[in-house]
Amino acid sequence: MWYNSMHDSSKKQIPQATIKRLATYVQVLQNLNRENVEIISSEPLAAACGVQGSQLRKDLAYFGEFGIRGLGYPVKNLIQAITSSLGVDHEWPMILIGVGNLGRAMINHISFHSKSFVIKAIFDCDPFKIGETVHGLEVRCTDDIKEIVQNLQIMIGIITTPPERAQRAANHLVNAGLTSILNFAPARITVPDTVQVEYVDFFNQMYSLAFNQTQQWKKNVF
Amino acid sequence: MWYNSMHDSSKKQIPQATIKRLATYVQVLQNLNRENVEIISSEPLAAACGVQGSQLRKDLAYFGEFGIRGLGYPVKNLIQAITSSLGVDHEWPMILIGVGNLGRAMINHISFHSKSFVIKAIFDCDPFKIGETVHGLEVRCTDDIKEIVQNLQIMIGIITTPPERAQRAANHLVNAGLTSILNFAPARITVPDTVQVEYVDFFNQMYSLAFNQTQQWKKNVF
Repeated sequence: MWYNSMHDSSKKQIPQATIKRLATYVQVLQNLNRENVEIISSEPLAAACGVQGSQLRKDLAYFGEFGIRGLGYPVKNLIQAITSSLGVDHEWPMILIGVGNLGRAMINHISFHSKSFVIKAIFDCDPFKIGETVHGLEVRCTDDIKEIVQNLQIMIGIITTPPERAQRAANHLVNAGLTSILNFAPARITVPDTVQVEYVDFFNQMYSLAFNQTQQWKKNVF
Repeated sequence: MWYNSMHDSSKKQIPQATIKRLATYVQVLQNLNRENVEIISSEPLAAACGVQGSQLRKDLAYFGEFGIRGLGYPVKNLIQAITSSLGVDHEWPMILIGVGNLGRAMINHISFHSKSFVIKAIFDCDPFKIGETVHGLEVRCTDDIKEIVQNLQIMIGIITTPPERAQRAANHLVNAGLTSILNFAPARITVPDTVQVEYVDFFNQMYSLAFNQTQQWKKNVF
């Protein structure tokens, strides 16, 4: 019944907003699992994820009938069902281009926090960095990207270069046949329609906070 | 004329999307400035920022008449004008709560990349971390947040805790009087309407990439 409902659900169109919330649900559930929580009802789970209970139940309904009425969701099974439906119950080999300060931070952070998303190789075009070891990975020349992507069956490329080198990094990834890019560089990149790019722009978000706070002060002063 | 136009523009409502793009423009311009570029026309500047020229010109028009007709934008003046209009030409003292792997990464990265956004104090509730020094900052007990925020005139709080501790961290920040929060924890937080929260969710974005790529494979296989 479990697997049947998942199988049925694979035909439904799941909204992107739901997909992104599911990542949070899985992370919260994994924390509960580590604390040996076996069953959790929707309201405390929703609260821990910072969403409304109704939102959580609606999101999980895309995957079939998970809950045990009157008891709640079985934590381990729910993790397995969501990650399997999303395709993140297996390893996603990734590469990272740009081994500067941000790149190093992300190599450490992603390795620490995720079993599914695994950085397999790291690249830089700076000859002074090539050959250096970061978190157990040797920095390689960007010329080798295509070969490594094919040999290691890489699926996602991460860009952590300075903004002016982001497009060149994206070209390398696209040229190597990758269709999924996570871009931390503060620059927009141009890629074919078949390639999905996700942007992580937290300096832009800090600008937004600073600007809005400045506007608030002006209102209060004048 | 420069300052007059900026003064006039302060009455216009600048869209949030423009504000966020301006952060990218400033970062690209700062790179150009470091390379001693003095003047740049809108098309190559737009290309470097990864936006259309028309978009760039429209965004900059909110701040008055910047360009020198037939020549382009004077790089240094444009940086000064944008950062001054946004209120990011002065220091924004920040604190960070949650000195785990992600927190350490962000302390390093933000210190390296920004002169405006400066982390002044860092906090954790883990007694084993309190007293430790990270990037020159001593990890302090979360009980001290309110006092430090007031003494150091902190303006932005950054949350890098695990998801289940994000709400408690947010409560500390709100209780200390902060109204701007950048949340890296994969959890939604509840705050009063007067507080702006920006979420940085890159694991969610990786889930989205993985899910969409899985869907693509299914299409190609079945």
